[in-house]
Amino acid sequence: MANLLPNSSFSVLLKIQLPNRPGYLAQVIETIGQAGGNVGDITLLEQTRELCDREIVVDASSADHQQTIVGKVKALAEVKLLDWYDRTFQMHQGGKITVMTKTPLTRQSDLAMAYTPGVGRVCRAIADDPNRVFDLTVKQNMVAIVTDGSAVLGLGNLGPEGALPVMEGKAMLFKEFGGVDAFPICVQTQSTDAIVEIVKQVSPVFGGVNLEDIAAPRCFEIEARLKTELDIPIFHDDQHGTAIVVLAALTNALKFVKKALPSIKIVINGAGAAGIAVAKLLQEGGATNIWLCDSQGIVSRDRSDLNPAKQSMAVDTAGKLADAMQDADVFLGLSAPGVVSVEMVKSMAAAPIVFAMANPIPEIQPELVSDCVAVMATGRSDYPNQINNVLAFPGLFRGALDCRASDLTTRMFLAAARAIADLVPPSEIQATHIVPSAFDPAVATAVAEAVRQAAIADGVTKC
Amino acid sequence: MANLLPNSSFSVLLKIQLPNRPGYLAQVIETIGQAGGNVGDITLLEQTRELCDREIVVDASSADHQQTIVGKVKALAEVKLLDWYDRTFQMHQGGKITVMTKTPLTRQSDLAMAYTPGVGRVCRAIADDPNRVFDLTVKQNMVAIVTDGSAVLGLGNLGPEGALPVMEGKAMLFKEFGGVDAFPICVQTQSTDAIVEIVKQVSPVFGGVNLEDIAAPRCFEIEARLKTELDIPIFHDDQHGTAIVVLAALTNALKFVKKALPSIKIVINGAGAAGIAVAKLLQEGGATNIWLCDSQGIVSRDRSDLNPAKQSMAVDTAGKLADAMQDADVFLGLSAPGVVSVEMVKSMAAAPIVFAMANPIPEIQPELVSDCVAVMATGRSDYPNQINNVLAFPGLFRGALDCRASDLTTRMFLAAARAIADLVPPSEIQATHIVPSAFDPAVATAVAEAVRQAAIADGVTKC
Repeated sequence: MANLLPNSSFSVLLKIQLPNRPGYLAQVIETIGQAGGNVGDITLLEQTRELCDREIVVDASSADHQQTIVGKVKALAEVKLLDWYDRTFQMHQGGKITVMTKTPLTRQSDLAMAYTPGVGRVCRAIADDPNRVFDLTVKQNMVAIVTDGSAVLGLGNLGPEGALPVMEGKAMLFKEFGGVDAFPICVQTQSTDAIVEIVKQVSPVFGGVNLEDIAAPRCFEIEARLKTELDIPIFHDDQHGTAIVVLAALTNALKFVKKALPSIKIVINGAGAAGIAVAKLLQEGGATNIWLCDSQGIVSRDRSDLNPAKQSMAVDTAGKLADAMQDADVFLGLSAPGVVSVEMVKSMAAAPIVFAMANPIPEIQPELVSDCVAVMATGRSDYPNQINNVLAFPGLFRGALDCRASDLTTRMFLAAARAIADLVPPSEIQATHIVPSAFDPAVATAVAEAVRQAAIADGVTKC
Repeated sequence: MANLLPNSSFSVLLKIQLPNRPGYLAQVIETIGQAGGNVGDITLLEQTRELCDREIVVDASSADHQQTIVGKVKALAEVKLLDWYDRTFQMHQGGKITVMTKTPLTRQSDLAMAYTPGVGRVCRAIADDPNRVFDLTVKQNMVAIVTDGSAVLGLGNLGPEGALPVMEGKAMLFKEFGGVDAFPICVQTQSTDAIVEIVKQVSPVFGGVNLEDIAAPRCFEIEARLKTELDIPIFHDDQHGTAIVVLAALTNALKFVKKALPSIKIVINGAGAAGIAVAKLLQEGGATNIWLCDSQGIVSRDRSDLNPAKQSMAVDTAGKLADAMQDADVFLGLSAPGVVSVEMVKSMAAAPIVFAMANPIPEIQPELVSDCVAVMATGRSDYPNQINNVLAFPGLFRGALDCRASDLTTRMFLAAARAIADLVPPSEIQATHIVPSAFDPAVATAVAEAVRQAAIADGVTKC
């Protein structure tokens, strides 16, 4: 049931040669369509009187589906498949980020200033006044993306190497959306003490730390200890980035269904880092009736298997997820693929709001409940209403770095959520439009400014 | 006596406005010249019939000298100093490197491939086959520049923040000269065990490690342990980079004076990381008569204060540096500013070769002995014959990364030195031209190929 629709993550590029006569391209496109592939860009590479070479982008729905489509095209008479590749893997060849110089080194004087002997003057200036490291080095704009690879997307404990493509992707998002330099620190240990120690040890280069894909409950302690021991912003995106964007999206979804946060019943499935953080920020934002569930069902006071974070959110009623979802106004899934059934959604209150954010495969495929939900959102970029942390973290760090914030506060998170929500004016809110586009350049700017103001209000800025 | 000549490390940019009539610019230039400044580029910014705005680059010889020059220009009637800044500090504002994306993120499909959900497929592929981290991530081309800031240039223990500008400069050189991505890891600890542990822990992201500006003897143990514990190239540039380039330069200097390495007397002053490594590589290259000196004088067998590295190089004769230098053919300084006198140089054998490589201020200023040495070299980019590690490390790592070398060997170092020396054909060797230009793009290519061949010969390649 995963990946019912063709999507870009299973995109292929086909390079074909075919007769340069009407009808042949149509035949190729028809064949792809019949095989269930979704055609994207078609590029004419070159043509003669007789032949033409074209590249065709085709989205498939799985790796097997890619093979099926390629096989069908290959089987066409008079069409020659010159080459094909998986576009996602191609994009990752050699990695996705690169370290560049800001100024070229073209003559001796450049070397004498950027390196020895001139650089010695700058080193001495920093040694004499440690605060100058923020002016004279990359530290002012550099964030460490720290992971132990223990909770990579929804895929589990893939280790530091397996996590690296996500961290590189994150660094891309930091740069493209927030103008923030970011670099992956993927550590081999999964010990809390060791991770805290390593981050402290490498912190001289960084103006902020973004913890990523570290399993709960370890991530809570790492974040708390680093916040105490370092005077730069520490952010666990899986917790607070998710919480900020969920609050923003929910704010607008509630406007659409004309309900108010304090009076609704919210079910959160998934009591890991993200689930707990969402619950807490929703409370800070005004929610009063939150039912947290984990793989054992409702997080209720009678359970003896709860860690402190879960205990703090426990309710009186025991039961399963299906029990919790009855009459709920909102379902927030931060859990696992396919754990929600159509029946569960149908048992919710009128005009239900469903955010199925498990990645890469949601708790329930949107196609299955499109006729019975008021607002549907997922964590995926190929459906409407993507609950995408990229709406929050680039602007959040942009704002925090710009005012040299020494910490991140709840006020800054709430301000970020409000800024994101406000970017969709009430008149434009629709069932398929509760969050601004990730590609709207106004997002990071608005979030940065809101965060900066909140930092000033909380007195955590250093300039 | 430091910085006798104006140089780029004390370069200023003056922005001036002056009457747009003949004679005024000449007056400014003359004033700068009389003040001892050296004029570089002059740029016309804009002009009207009455006035013109110009930028003038001026090299000074010290920070005080900068102020003097600025003051003289300011005092000129009819010339208005609009602005001025120190070009070295200006170049360092905000740091010198930046993390960039290799492909732009312009639409949803880009996000779906570079990040979630598509990236999950790549993560899984690496988790299933750890070797693929070399294909699908930055690891294949990424070097960690690791320092504890304990021996920054010749400036001493400036700490990790004080060292960062050097590490950024190094990363620039890696990229510009070798196409290698490099990122600074500046650690807060100066404990050998802790540094080894941190580098191991962050190693998943890196295909190689360049140790930099770590004090002796700690650097020896760190290098040795990392070589054993990691299967990526570990390089201590202050040791081996220096040794490679010194051997290359000395090879050509000896061709110029028609002497042979096995039969000459060599004095090395400075028994730290660089001095010891130079001594050992020269021995591997054929040198037989090396006198190592430290701040206490000749490293002789009768001394009781020698660490194991020094003991391995000890000679029978005791004495001071001045004693050692009598009748020496070659002086190699890897020590401290101004420790060599003109008299010491004059006591050397005929056609003496002096490499005064203390940074940023040499053991003896070249101007003082220009009439009594056959070949003079320094570590500075503003004198001829710069013994610049940039001739070695970018090509060395380029070659090692290209063949996925698991280690670096003496054969690879000797091959690199020979490749560098051979880039100056015997017919072109002069007293002021014993090494190729750092800007000659043939250098890194030649070094990389030589290193790759040597790695294959030593059986340390993985592809």
